[in-house]
Amino acid sequence: MPNNEPIEFYFDFSSPYGYLAACQIDAVAERHAREVLWRPYLIGAAMKLSGRKPLVIQPMIADYTRTDLGRSARRAGVKLNLPDPFPVATVAACRAYYWLLDQEQEKAKSLAQALYLAYFVEGRNIGEPDVVLDVAGTAGVDPDALSDALQDPAVKERLKQVTDDAIARGIFGSPFFIVEGEPFWGNDRLPEVDEWLQTGGW
Amino acid sequence: MPNNEPIEFYFDFSSPYGYLAACQIDAVAERHAREVLWRPYLIGAAMKLSGRKPLVIQPMIADYTRTDLGRSARRAGVKLNLPDPFPVATVAACRAYYWLLDQEQEKAKSLAQALYLAYFVEGRNIGEPDVVLDVAGTAGVDPDALSDALQDPAVKERLKQVTDDAIARGIFGSPFFIVEGEPFWGNDRLPEVDEWLQTGGW
Repeated sequence: MPNNEPIEFYFDFSSPYGYLAACQIDAVAERHAREVLWRPYLIGAAMKLSGRKPLVIQPMIADYTRTDLGRSARRAGVKLNLPDPFPVATVAACRAYYWLLDQEQEKAKSLAQALYLAYFVEGRNIGEPDVVLDVAGTAGVDPDALSDALQDPAVKERLKQVTDDAIARGIFGSPFFIVEGEPFWGNDRLPEVDEWLQTGGW
Repeated sequence: MPNNEPIEFYFDFSSPYGYLAACQIDAVAERHAREVLWRPYLIGAAMKLSGRKPLVIQPMIADYTRTDLGRSARRAGVKLNLPDPFPVATVAACRAYYWLLDQEQEKAKSLAQALYLAYFVEGRNIGEPDVVLDVAGTAGVDPDALSDALQDPAVKERLKQVTDDAIARGIFGSPFFIVEGEPFWGNDRLPEVDEWLQTGGW
């Protein structure tokens, strides 16, 4: 019996490897007729627990990571400019996503993609709520309604719940995939995710 | 003009991903008629500078890493048992390697492979110099001569130099490959190393 379980795709809007995965995950999923559930969350909360810091601000690792990000982007055939400031708070971006998701699922994914492009290609600071509103406006979202939503306690609670659930499930990185119950951490695990879906695992 | 530059393979004897790479790197190199320079070093010195800790002792990440290591080993078709104690000091193992390397290059690689198997398959504590001597003896090395070498100031200095050089070159992880000047960090980068050698890079 074919398994049609969707792929869960956890990421942080401030994560360059999350951005690279966002550019590729849908193609992987389509090859295996799977849906992708895009789940932005606040990786900072997980990093507090795991003791990790973003790779591009760690001594020694920072230089390598810049090299690897450029190489990974070229390999994937996508643009990537490391933005400044980095990292930024992604609370507003995440809230906008979940508020929209409850209304229009496909539009929410388009917004997520637009936010990633704004940050990692255009260098806009998506940590600023005004930038999130502007990007959302360009994606066809009503900025006034979204502006209210960003302060809505129910929307705030929704994001908190997603992040708490992710941590409770042992999710700590970006990107982080759950495929048929199996966890995969990192953009570099996409070929394995592909192979896992193809073969049914090993 | 074909490039015949050897692949530099840096690793720590206490690193499970280094062990997985050690099981696979020669096959990758052979496909492209390249030599592999095996370069064990003391990753602890690099970790002090980069602020990193082994993945399998970090909160949250530990559980994932155990899953990923098992899955990566099955994918590579090799045995892997996470040893206890972990990690262990690998000074004696490294010194034995470099002492032997200056005499018999192929035998040194065999010793490195035997030490990895002793630790990650047989669960022997290669942090103990006596275990290193025993493994080396089984690999055809004179235990008395090696025992003296482990205390030889020139051998000690040799390992210190390798580790200092690695850090000066920005090497901080295990496994860590240098391929035609290009750095690759992680066992999961082996397919990229393969593709880099095939295509000449991107």
